Amino acid sequence: MDFFITILGSSSATFHKNRGLTSHVVSYKGDHFLVDCGEGTQIQMQRFGTPLQKISRIFISHLHGDHFYGLIGLLSTYHLFHRKAPLHIYSHRPLQEIIGLQLKASSTELSYPLYFHDLEEGQSGVLYETEDLRIETFPLIHSVPTNGFVFKERNVQRRLVKDKIKSMNLPYEAYDELKSGKDFYLDDGSLIRCDEVTLKPFLPRSYAFCSDTGYTEDFLPFVKDSTILYHEATFLTGDAPNKRLEKYHATAKEAATIASKANAGQLIIGHFSARYNMLSPLLEEARSVFSNTTPAIDGKRYVLTHESSSETVS
Amino acid sequence: MDFFITILGSSSATFHKNRGLTSHVVSYKGDHFLVDCGEGTQIQMQRFGTPLQKISRIFISHLHGDHFYGLIGLLSTYHLFHRKAPLHIYSHRPLQEIIGLQLKASSTELSYPLYFHDLEEGQSGVLYETEDLRIETFPLIHSVPTNGFVFKERNVQRRLVKDKIKSMNLPYEAYDELKSGKDFYLDDGSLIRCDEVTLKPFLPRSYAFCSDTGYTEDFLPFVKDSTILYHEATFLTGDAPNKRLEKYHATAKEAATIASKANAGQLIIGHFSARYNMLSPLLEEARSVFSNTTPAIDGKRYVLTHESSSETVS
Repeated sequence: MDFFITILGSSSATFHKNRGLTSHVVSYKGDHFLVDCGEGTQIQMQRFGTPLQKISRIFISHLHGDHFYGLIGLLSTYHLFHRKAPLHIYSHRPLQEIIGLQLKASSTELSYPLYFHDLEEGQSGVLYETEDLRIETFPLIHSVPTNGFVFKERNVQRRLVKDKIKSMNLPYEAYDELKSGKDFYLDDGSLIRCDEVTLKPFLPRSYAFCSDTGYTEDFLPFVKDSTILYHEATFLTGDAPNKRLEKYHATAKEAATIASKANAGQLIIGHFSARYNMLSPLLEEARSVFSNTTPAIDGKRYVLTHESSSETVS
Repeated sequence: MDFFITILGSSSATFHKNRGLTSHVVSYKGDHFLVDCGEGTQIQMQRFGTPLQKISRIFISHLHGDHFYGLIGLLSTYHLFHRKAPLHIYSHRPLQEIIGLQLKASSTELSYPLYFHDLEEGQSGVLYETEDLRIETFPLIHSVPTNGFVFKERNVQRRLVKDKIKSMNLPYEAYDELKSGKDFYLDDGSLIRCDEVTLKPFLPRSYAFCSDTGYTEDFLPFVKDSTILYHEATFLTGDAPNKRLEKYHATAKEAATIASKANAGQLIIGHFSARYNMLSPLLEEARSVFSNTTPAIDGKRYVLTHESSSETVS
């Protein structure tokens, strides 16, 4: 389990008695990223045993309160806990100004370096990458500038066939060479052929986070073949209280349509209107279009397995 | 039960698993006031059945996050619930600027009138009064400008002796006159003497909220004879992690000393450091100085009874 998502909140706009506000933790090989941070996120982190201090980067999809009002409290808690590790925040303006004003009001000089990375309206592309992970952003349709994020594996390596190599007594450096697709020469000049002792790599896994958005297919190229695609599903079809909200939020059916068109392995729906006590009608609506749909449940982990990768990717 | 306090949070600085951040609801004869509003206050209100929409005035003691980071979320929820009733906020600057910037970032024009009343550093005196209640403020000692608040009954009326008046068949207007201390003339010219059918008023009840503060007796005149006095008690004696915190926070013993010198009827201690899982040591320390001490417990109501008023007031 080296790639998983923890849902910290699944309610939209206002709290539901069983559901906090939007926040997801994306965990990949020991790195932890936070996506959105509604009020009470740090309470949920404590409740669900999230490694609070290990978050290194925070991505805020847009500046509606239910997606970021918990951020200043989390930053303050880090300070009170004497955090030293740098923290990076990716968001639209004027988040830096909002945070700065609040820190100034309490005469707080943070104990750790805090870096803001502004998202521009309509921005798409790579925000951050490591040797084996790339984080990209893409624009959504909402009443204020809003972005989605996708966490994609990269440089996925070939898999050693243990039965074949265990008797070979290879030097340590051979494994990395072979996994990277290269043949390896032993000191005696003999050749270990990569394709004889390794299998082709697993398909790269990816997690796409489609925050508040009206229905749009514009971002499909960014989320194509996601292992798990999260898409907001605020309402059942026809339940939006007015035309304005219909335009800026999606229904369960629309979320499922996107998952289907994106050829996702699995769909998580969330950001449920607080009017819904039971989620089954939303699930049923989504599953009528995309069967592998699961609801976002506060505190639940969703693992990106190699088996759950879409098998049609070449 | 026409005058009571509901504790919404009793932890200091950071959340404890059983304790939210500072917020008290003061309820007096159908009016509800909020004092401080740490992150998660609206969650606690929902959890404890607080009449969220009936809050008319909010008093923020100071601009440390654990006392006000929940405010913007509460204001937003009022908006999402289409609140129409005006809301008044009393606080130090720059709270209005902080709130304004966040509302602007989400393009929100609130559905209700919001009025800010700035507290000046060192300010004392009346903030608001009605026919039967007066709310005063007084300065405390902390690392940023900080104020306490006291809710005092005023114009407390004499009490009708039911056994004496029930056979008199008095007109409705007689009751108010007699309770206000005046004699009353019946239409036939006969006199009903106030002191024959009423008893002297109960002592006026009061609730004093002494937020974050180092030990000081300067505010004693404002909180003298409080029916219930809340005083922060962040640490046990000797437990403050450094000299700076010792200066700006109180120990359980110091809180109790203030209650004793103020001649309070009852002391509530709160704002406990998250280091304390058990509150009994803090209670024991306070009770060694002031026996009628009770801990602030999230969700608990504390009733100001006439019997609990300090009987030494003339």
